Amino acid sequence: MNKIKELLAGIQAVDQGWMSKARERQNRLTKPPGSLGVLEEIACRTAAIQKTLAPSVDHKRIVVFAADHGVTEEGVSPYPQEVTAQMVANFLRGGAAINAFAKSAGADVVVVDIGVKSPIPAVNLADLSIQFIRKPVRQGTRNFLKELALNQQETLEAILLGYGIAEEAKRAGVNLIGLGEMGIGNTTAAAAVTAALTGLPAAKVTGRGTGADDSTLATKRSVVDQALRLHTPDPADAFSVLQTFGGLEIAGLVGVCLGAATGRIPIVIDGFIATAAAALAARMCPTTADYMFAAHLSAEPGHSALLHLIRLHPMLDLGMRLGEGTGAALAMKVIEAAVRSFADMATFESAGVSDKPEVAKGVAS
Amino acid sequence: MNKIKELLAGIQAVDQGWMSKARERQNRLTKPPGSLGVLEEIACRTAAIQKTLAPSVDHKRIVVFAADHGVTEEGVSPYPQEVTAQMVANFLRGGAAINAFAKSAGADVVVVDIGVKSPIPAVNLADLSIQFIRKPVRQGTRNFLKELALNQQETLEAILLGYGIAEEAKRAGVNLIGLGEMGIGNTTAAAAVTAALTGLPAAKVTGRGTGADDSTLATKRSVVDQALRLHTPDPADAFSVLQTFGGLEIAGLVGVCLGAATGRIPIVIDGFIATAAAALAARMCPTTADYMFAAHLSAEPGHSALLHLIRLHPMLDLGMRLGEGTGAALAMKVIEAAVRSFADMATFESAGVSDKPEVAKGVAS
Repeated sequence: MNKIKELLAGIQAVDQGWMSKARERQNRLTKPPGSLGVLEEIACRTAAIQKTLAPSVDHKRIVVFAADHGVTEEGVSPYPQEVTAQMVANFLRGGAAINAFAKSAGADVVVVDIGVKSPIPAVNLADLSIQFIRKPVRQGTRNFLKELALNQQETLEAILLGYGIAEEAKRAGVNLIGLGEMGIGNTTAAAAVTAALTGLPAAKVTGRGTGADDSTLATKRSVVDQALRLHTPDPADAFSVLQTFGGLEIAGLVGVCLGAATGRIPIVIDGFIATAAAALAARMCPTTADYMFAAHLSAEPGHSALLHLIRLHPMLDLGMRLGEGTGAALAMKVIEAAVRSFADMATFESAGVSDKPEVAKGVAS
Repeated sequence: MNKIKELLAGIQAVDQGWMSKARERQNRLTKPPGSLGVLEEIACRTAAIQKTLAPSVDHKRIVVFAADHGVTEEGVSPYPQEVTAQMVANFLRGGAAINAFAKSAGADVVVVDIGVKSPIPAVNLADLSIQFIRKPVRQGTRNFLKELALNQQETLEAILLGYGIAEEAKRAGVNLIGLGEMGIGNTTAAAAVTAALTGLPAAKVTGRGTGADDSTLATKRSVVDQALRLHTPDPADAFSVLQTFGGLEIAGLVGVCLGAATGRIPIVIDGFIATAAAALAARMCPTTADYMFAAHLSAEPGHSALLHLIRLHPMLDLGMRLGEGTGAALAMKVIEAAVRSFADMATFESAGVSDKPEVAKGVAS
């Protein structure tokens, strides 16, 4: 655990001096103050994270971790576990939603096999904007209804893999990183993490995931509830919560959050599973949340509780519940518009536009 | 008015056969059905509008009409009227928010002087993605607190100008058109239009616009209220409502809506003022609304009433209240992601991904 402490020590608070300078510039741009709504604060925070009044998010990357979950043997998902491997192949061929969303956002995609159980069908990587990293920590987690999902070493290894991917992104000049994931059964793991971190009952934080019917949903809730009573993890100990429930993709995303915050790369969280990872990272080091933007509000019931925990408001509410980083990709364009307008717009002085309210001249208000 | 009737006759309903075909394809794509939330319906509607299962929004255009309002002499805005002309120059120089947002969305921008009162500072148009059309119908509207904002001929001329711009967009291959506007005082005109169309009192639909203080807001509300009692326009007669309150930019946008619907170009509405135009177009011909997408919910209080009137749900809620087409530009990227995923994603069969719920095999559900 000394290794984790070492990583956390590298994360610094976002500079409040830059935040003030950014807000001052924001108010001189040729628009009524406040008229860009939440985009104004998004731009200011990005400027402060990057320590510049000319922030840029021109190199976007979405990291999609894929892994399997031992708990699927309890019947928590309507899809077979093989779908995780099949979808990884689909990502690599460019046929999945995240490929289309990433193209639309101008983001490259890094797909990481951090623990897929079934063999991944062979694919020739033709698209240069897609990178494949194959470093499974183990072939899926253990069934957390019976035992800990991961041991300490595996958990650490998965976090370090994610951390290294953020470091590599920093070296490549990435200035906006999105969190994505794929793993049949991972809404069950995320629900258990959410219940553990928030103290909320299983029923409040466990949803239908990819489309569970009533009976599967009842099973999921019961599994999460039993697992919480079996393990009773300490909510203050994020590492232990992660080790107890997994999954490996969540651990990888925790590592990306820690690495991106260290490298001062703004992070775009995706939906429920990615936010579980973000909340774990923020529990390890609250400062990490200052580097995060919440993309959207997922249809999963546990999502808003997690966002509340890290005090972030989602930009979008479009009823999405796919994961893969699709919500993050959409939000990247909102951040880009916010940042681009902040960096490129004329000021009242430079454009020769009146910013003096005419009416106010004669009226005391 | 025969001319208007002639235009309306060219608008056809969106093909429901294509809508069904699109929904069938949507359900075969490699994602759980419904998991892309409202984006699924956005893609299907775009496909049906374009009559293809390979829809595209790769040529986006934002049309920004600028005009002045005679009612500003009542003190309804904190900014002087000259700001309209100054902001047009700012658009042409590329220094405004819409320029940054359009660049981020990959949209070109057409700026139209349809009735700016003050001289527009000279600008060399250097950016090829910006086009300037200078066809003022008159130098701003008349003060609608005293008389009709426009006469019948002026109203028609402004609508036809917008219609022609949509026709030109069609010829240029534009497949997604966004509505933008600039005009000091135009939230007052839009509030009057909203009150007339919805029957709601002035106080419910009149907001702070660019940032009116309490006393200016009270003036605005009183002006709208008095004007409604003076003119008592027939809510069923959209042309007359438009002629009564203006503005010329709203009339131009009405024309764009009618022309785009005729040419089967999907329309992205922006905020309060653009939605007033969209609601007028939909009152003239309800089918027009089938071609429209609502970008965002503005901070202006009258906006949701207008959206309710045309039965559209906004995609984004980001507290924006700038206009210019900024919200439309953001929403264009949401539509692009929706359409691109619909057109490009693999199906379960083509990708070899299981779509058969494993659990369901043994469970009657």
